[in-house]
Amino acid sequence: MSKVMTGATMSLDGYIAGPGESGFDLLFRWYNNGDVETRNINPDLTWHTTRASADVLREMMSNVGALVVGRHLYDLTNAWGGRHPLDVPTVVLTHRPPTDRPLADENFVFVTDGIEAAVEQARELAGDKWVALNGGTIARQGLDAGLVDEVHVELTPFVLGAGTPLFGALATAPVELTGPYSIVEGNEVVHLRYRVVRGPERP
Amino acid sequence: MSKVMTGATMSLDGYIAGPGESGFDLLFRWYNNGDVETRNINPDLTWHTTRASADVLREMMSNVGALVVGRHLYDLTNAWGGRHPLDVPTVVLTHRPPTDRPLADENFVFVTDGIEAAVEQARELAGDKWVALNGGTIARQGLDAGLVDEVHVELTPFVLGAGTPLFGALATAPVELTGPYSIVEGNEVVHLRYRVVRGPERP
Repeated sequence: MSKVMTGATMSLDGYIAGPGESGFDLLFRWYNNGDVETRNINPDLTWHTTRASADVLREMMSNVGALVVGRHLYDLTNAWGGRHPLDVPTVVLTHRPPTDRPLADENFVFVTDGIEAAVEQARELAGDKWVALNGGTIARQGLDAGLVDEVHVELTPFVLGAGTPLFGALATAPVELTGPYSIVEGNEVVHLRYRVVRGPERP
Repeated sequence: MSKVMTGATMSLDGYIAGPGESGFDLLFRWYNNGDVETRNINPDLTWHTTRASADVLREMMSNVGALVVGRHLYDLTNAWGGRHPLDVPTVVLTHRPPTDRPLADENFVFVTDGIEAAVEQARELAGDKWVALNGGTIARQGLDAGLVDEVHVELTPFVLGAGTPLFGALATAPVELTGPYSIVEGNEVVHLRYRVVRGPERP
């Protein structure tokens, strides 16, 4: 069965965005502060990282088979111009499915009946590959529903002081992880990989 | 001149305490999940950690020459029974100096006129050794005043979802750090060491 992971690039003090959607210039600096080029399907988004971070990106790109995102990100990115840069089908969890496109095609599948259904749909699309849940609201819902196997944090050396937390107020907190089972150092980022511990109450 | 550092044991999502002062059983687990004993002046507080974490603790104990804490922690710990476990003089920043003891003796010095004065006092007490600022409010004031040279985070694999953030709402955010210049893995903790970048606006 495919692995379900979530994570995000995070400030040292736990935020995936600063106040008013600020801080991305700092948080995402590691995507463009190295010599090694990693391409994706969006030519405007080619990454230049250290060799270590490039290996992390390539591992993600070769292993992720489907994504689950929220409607906010889908709208904010204008549907990534038609398909997600990772070149995988993307499940959009939303209360208001779009009226100007099919509910499912090879690029996007719109799910309205909750995180379990969205992850189930993504699992089918991913086959043996990983399902990746977007950080923030979707990650929180997935963790609360006991659906997440791993948390991947790209930890950056910046203190934002306030903003959008990695998960926000979990209903099931505290959640125990184990690890990190992997620590990779890039330039202005440390890639940390954790597994979620599933207690008897988290089947 | 002595180094000024701050830091804390932190959850993966950036909290040094969970809601309602909860979560310490998880956060501080690394102090007692290993075979290597580290003693301090409080026999009830002997630590049992991995060898790697014990080395980190010993480095701290041999290098920290004075502490700066807030009145809340001083009261909460009942003045640590008379002297801080690290066996160094402790500067207490407070608006209400105590009336039942001297304003300064070999264990505690009470400072009422702000974080700069508290750190200056601690520098004098520390000599060539480090000054350590307690995480939370004192750390935030120190970072905002440009007084902090290093941030040391003991990162634990737990998600608390809410609580007391490492620094809280900094007036000077975002703050750029460099590093980590050191990553040490313990059991259920990763010890991360960063330096604060001082821009022209942070003399």
